[in-house]
Amino acid sequence: MDLDLIRQLTIPGDTKIVLAVVDGLGGLEHPETGRSELEAASTNNLDRLAQDSSCGLTMPVGYGITPGSGPGHLALFGYDPLRYLVGRGVLEALGIDFDLQPQDVAARGNFCTLDGQGRIVDRRAGRLATEQNVALCEKLRQIELPGVQLFVEPVREHRFVLVLRPNGSGDLSDKISETDPQREGASPLAAQPLADDAKPTADLVNTFIDRARAQINGSKPANGLTLRGFAKQPKIPSFPETFVLRAGAIAAYPMYRGLAKLVGMTVLPTGSTYDDEIATLRDCWDDFDFFFIHYKYADSAGEDGNFDAKMAALEAFDKAVPNLQELGADVLMIAGDHSTPAAMAGHSWHPVPFLLRAKYIRRDDVDAFNERACLRGALGTFPTSEVMPLAMAHAGRFTKYGA
Amino acid sequence: MDLDLIRQLTIPGDTKIVLAVVDGLGGLEHPETGRSELEAASTNNLDRLAQDSSCGLTMPVGYGITPGSGPGHLALFGYDPLRYLVGRGVLEALGIDFDLQPQDVAARGNFCTLDGQGRIVDRRAGRLATEQNVALCEKLRQIELPGVQLFVEPVREHRFVLVLRPNGSGDLSDKISETDPQREGASPLAAQPLADDAKPTADLVNTFIDRARAQINGSKPANGLTLRGFAKQPKIPSFPETFVLRAGAIAAYPMYRGLAKLVGMTVLPTGSTYDDEIATLRDCWDDFDFFFIHYKYADSAGEDGNFDAKMAALEAFDKAVPNLQELGADVLMIAGDHSTPAAMAGHSWHPVPFLLRAKYIRRDDVDAFNERACLRGALGTFPTSEVMPLAMAHAGRFTKYGA
Repeated sequence: MDLDLIRQLTIPGDTKIVLAVVDGLGGLEHPETGRSELEAASTNNLDRLAQDSSCGLTMPVGYGITPGSGPGHLALFGYDPLRYLVGRGVLEALGIDFDLQPQDVAARGNFCTLDGQGRIVDRRAGRLATEQNVALCEKLRQIELPGVQLFVEPVREHRFVLVLRPNGSGDLSDKISETDPQREGASPLAAQPLADDAKPTADLVNTFIDRARAQINGSKPANGLTLRGFAKQPKIPSFPETFVLRAGAIAAYPMYRGLAKLVGMTVLPTGSTYDDEIATLRDCWDDFDFFFIHYKYADSAGEDGNFDAKMAALEAFDKAVPNLQELGADVLMIAGDHSTPAAMAGHSWHPVPFLLRAKYIRRDDVDAFNERACLRGALGTFPTSEVMPLAMAHAGRFTKYGA
Repeated sequence: MDLDLIRQLTIPGDTKIVLAVVDGLGGLEHPETGRSELEAASTNNLDRLAQDSSCGLTMPVGYGITPGSGPGHLALFGYDPLRYLVGRGVLEALGIDFDLQPQDVAARGNFCTLDGQGRIVDRRAGRLATEQNVALCEKLRQIELPGVQLFVEPVREHRFVLVLRPNGSGDLSDKISETDPQREGASPLAAQPLADDAKPTADLVNTFIDRARAQINGSKPANGLTLRGFAKQPKIPSFPETFVLRAGAIAAYPMYRGLAKLVGMTVLPTGSTYDDEIATLRDCWDDFDFFFIHYKYADSAGEDGNFDAKMAALEAFDKAVPNLQELGADVLMIAGDHSTPAAMAGHSWHPVPFLLRAKYIRRDDVDAFNERACLRGALGTFPTSEVMPLAMAHAGRFTKYGA
């Protein structure tokens, strides 16, 4: 739904909305049993909740489109994921809790192995040990460039984040081409300006690359680097202002805190487990109208291609469902940002099971919470970006449209 | 569907289409029985017709959006309700059968009670008796303003309609702010121009308000007034021209006649009951290709929060279904403009049961006409503005798209 229309319809209220996101929730059948992770898992609490909810399946971006974490979450927060895009550099910076500023340009860096002629022989430098990554980043931090402050932050293995922050009123562009040739045997490319005003930034980046090569020349296994996904923070309208909701975000993983911060939610300090997250939810209950609470482990297990681990992660989530329910939200939703079938060991385009529990729900015949059962749901298969408008309606926070 | 595409696809024919609208058709389950109004009602004729139809659920405006009567009907007539909006003043004028002209500006008025300082103490003047309203409107008709003709028409209780009609070639603007402060304890606001060319109209409105206050000063309980929803008739492409259909509208309630007139349908004189409406349908059968016939009582009962009365209204409609069928329309549709669940005592955002009976329908497993059964319908859940394109196709009035 158009954000202007959302603003026009929104009225204040004292109801509470909980959006519980199970990362990578949807799956596919196991080739031997014909049952998906959700169908195979023992999830009595979710099944009972589904019987008492309106169910459906959400489509994050479009038919056949496999979303990254950014589009998956932006859609859940009510934004058109084709209009608002979070660049790779920014997402990587959010993923390490880096305090990105609006004028910063961030890029994802890879350490790689170059041969004597400067050609890439290993794009990931053998997935070098994170400690070596840390030591290399220390070296790169020695580099100074005119007019900008540099940040070089290790992620893990061969991955790091480069952030350029302009001094004073300086302005940088993120319209810069990637330096990763995406294949071995080729040399890293020079960064090219992709817009008229991007040349000064491209020059800075190329200077950085030259000095970096000098700093780590002779290191093993990583003696080179590539940069991609140059990006600034996208300009996204504020979630709390658009929906007139005091919005709190609870996530143990930094990337999801970062995505919530990007749309203006208040990120609540929490611990590293889902029990910690629920304790935070309980502690902050009175201070917010809307909570985004993130459960990561279904996605991790799916990404590993581990069907049993994903089942176990879903069962662990299921045990926490009564704790979510007992807080008495006016609107409780269980949703996913995308599917992560263990059979595919990665994200997929398949629609994601969804349920919404509230007072004025339309009933359906869904008796279990899984991909197949949700097909019979009252909400049908619908765009993920409509989750928030539905929540607002069920929370009594939308007024009538037209006389 | 885009109206240009509709025009492009439309071919003439001699088939007949009946769109039977049950106002507020959709509902929600009764908290004690778990059955909705349609599920609880005995509607054998509708159920049998549903078995012989393609069924589905229509979404009037969008996910979570509760439509007013205007958007609900415009969508049924094939118009994008987000693009074509009927202002409150116009709708109120239509609702009393006022013969609105294209250059008129209409507003909804409320009589209110002011204290000695001119502050509102009752926004509805205790919902004053309609006879008192009529008397007050008589007084306000004494007012004369330069360059415009004034109409002050009582609606009922505290509500009236003000219409300004420019003399000769004069032009008025409807970009005028509301004077209702929307709360008690505040004074009515002055009308403000909301566009560069709206000041003359705002000045006229404020002069009217001053003179009106003088006219009714000392009256009890209503000694003040507020105005809102200033609006001209929207420019809506003609329904008969767009669809190449001689279109007749049959509605006992004036607002629905007005909406049909707004899109260029021929409004057929009829009586006050649904039997009268069906008699009109029969009498005019040969003269039109398309009929919109409106049944009001399901909505009224839903608005009253009266589950049993809504059930009874649906059962009364069901008795008339064979009379609708026996005319032998090539396409017969039973539709609603929106849901009005008795549980909510008002319009709601929930999709609305729909059926279409024609020769070349796709069959489904729907065995009863209600919210839950229609979820299994061949038409799925779809935008209400696609009802007319579906009707045109089933009536053999759409040609092939592309070679």
